Amino acid sequence: MIVIDVPEPDHDRALAFWGGATGQPMDPVPDHPEYHYRQLHGQETWMLVQRLGDGPARMHVDFHTDDLEAEVARLEGLGAERVKKIDGWWLMRDPAGLTFCVVPDPPGRLDDSNAQRWD
Amino acid sequence: MIVIDVPEPDHDRALAFWGGATGQPMDPVPDHPEYHYRQLHGQETWMLVQRLGDGPARMHVDFHTDDLEAEVARLEGLGAERVKKIDGWWLMRDPAGLTFCVVPDPPGRLDDSNAQRWD
Repeated sequence: MIVIDVPEPDHDRALAFWGGATGQPMDPVPDHPEYHYRQLHGQETWMLVQRLGDGPARMHVDFHTDDLEAEVARLEGLGAERVKKIDGWWLMRDPAGLTFCVVPDPPGRLDDSNAQRWD
Repeated sequence: MIVIDVPEPDHDRALAFWGGATGQPMDPVPDHPEYHYRQLHGQETWMLVQRLGDGPARMHVDFHTDDLEAEVARLEGLGAERVKKIDGWWLMRDPAGLTFCVVPDPPGRLDDSNAQRWD
């Protein structure tokens, strides 16, 4: 998942831009008014536009996993650091200081067709 | 293409991290020692790690197109701005100020299986 983080004043124009740029409007995410997303044309990758309360616009990636603790530990072993746990996922930082998230997916959504097996 | 831009002091650790995180080392790009890349597992999307001379670490996306001028004009119409032309590609800015690139691909590499047709 590619996430575009946009502060409130620019949100609506950026949301319209990224929907148009990728080919169709982003869909709202139920129960999360701060998120709009869509799957990229012909790809397994999704793009999500997140409305920020404040802070600079930025871009990050999410890793999706069906074993959160194992994936966070694997990425720590590669040199990333845990920043904080937010709701059910982990915010982490790569060796250059870039933040990214590790997000648990419900059982059954990830399989050999759309994910990489680490064990 | 997802591009991870990393300043020189952090480059080697970040390159090793992103290779490990995505499952195998990044490959060097011939004639471009500043670039390493790989196709993401099971996806059409590629990730590229770029060595920066300086500046903060950041992340951006590249749009690939077989009609550079038409694609840049399409994105301008959606609200992006041209920043500058670098070698053969355009650096642009989205409505929230995030930069991204529009990169021409050689004829024949893009077709209906891996790209979106706009005309």
